[in-house]
Amino acid sequence: MTNQQLLSDLILRTRSIRRFREQEGISLAILRSLVDLARLAPCAGNKQPFKYALSASRHTNALIFSSLRWAAYLQDWPGPAEGERPAAYIVICRDISISNALNSDQGFAVQNILLGATARGLGACVIASFVRDNIQKIMRIHEGLDPIWVIALGVPQEKVVVEPLGPEGDIRYWRDVAGVHHVPKRSLDDILLTQFEEEG
Amino acid sequence: MTNQQLLSDLILRTRSIRRFREQEGISLAILRSLVDLARLAPCAGNKQPFKYALSASRHTNALIFSSLRWAAYLQDWPGPAEGERPAAYIVICRDISISNALNSDQGFAVQNILLGATARGLGACVIASFVRDNIQKIMRIHEGLDPIWVIALGVPQEKVVVEPLGPEGDIRYWRDVAGVHHVPKRSLDDILLTQFEEEG
Repeated sequence: MTNQQLLSDLILRTRSIRRFREQEGISLAILRSLVDLARLAPCAGNKQPFKYALSASRHTNALIFSSLRWAAYLQDWPGPAEGERPAAYIVICRDISISNALNSDQGFAVQNILLGATARGLGACVIASFVRDNIQKIMRIHEGLDPIWVIALGVPQEKVVVEPLGPEGDIRYWRDVAGVHHVPKRSLDDILLTQFEEEG
Repeated sequence: MTNQQLLSDLILRTRSIRRFREQEGISLAILRSLVDLARLAPCAGNKQPFKYALSASRHTNALIFSSLRWAAYLQDWPGPAEGERPAAYIVICRDISISNALNSDQGFAVQNILLGATARGLGACVIASFVRDNIQKIMRIHEGLDPIWVIALGVPQEKVVVEPLGPEGDIRYWRDVAGVHHVPKRSLDDILLTQFEEEG
């Protein structure tokens, strides 16, 4: 496969994973190698305002887990059951002394982490809905740092498929009776605007 | 090379490029294939609010170019000279009817575009500083769409190196007398906070 094909394949396989083989731990060394990919992402003015707290500890993981909200569209599902919970977490924070920009570019850095996780056979889910004060206390994140997202990680214990939107255009993900998680994605034509081509 | 090594290498080579071989055009087909990578990125609530306008036309490129501001830290450099300007542009917009979230996740999508460009031997630069009204008019972007970033693309005509921060901790990129662009990146130790390890 060429680099292009490998990247396309990696991007397609990088899906939000919410059920894991909890017993299969992830070392701090692996978490650090993922942050090292985030470190090289572009950011406005090269300010690099992002800092990362890590947990590979079951005790800390359990505390973090109780401060998270899972999968808004799966209303009958309170989140992964014991044994299917994340094996590790990375909390990305903005160092306010470096940048307090509201609309910022943490996504560049976190996409590198997600792709890096997939390349290692891991799965991840970015969680924006959590009890900020709890996370700050559990992870001993000091006042000048603002936790933006919690990234849950582990060996995937679920199948996720990407598919076109249905006839009604619903974008909500859903889970079928076999437990497969379906993610409707808009088509390329749906997201393209004007295209200016070179003439002649 | 393993998938992991290929990804690390791709991430390291994905640097902001600001000088291009302008004569080497990029087809609309290539721009569409890059947007197709962005399409598969994660986003909050799977809403997929992002839409993309493309230019592979010299005439349109010239109009776009005159609405951009380049490289804030290179104060003696007004931007790439004729012959070194981008060969194509992708403008990423938020469809306000789908999501008006201020702090959003366009970075996930755009990092896929940047990595995809590198995998094809192209370079890119994400520009957040531009005359919004002009871009909206030039690209015929209608009112309900908000242009967030302009991504400039082309075959790289400059060398960019990543290096550690100097002793004074300055994060500003700079260009040496040979024209090499230097990007100081914080070390892994500088961006890691508390790390909780599994005991025993």
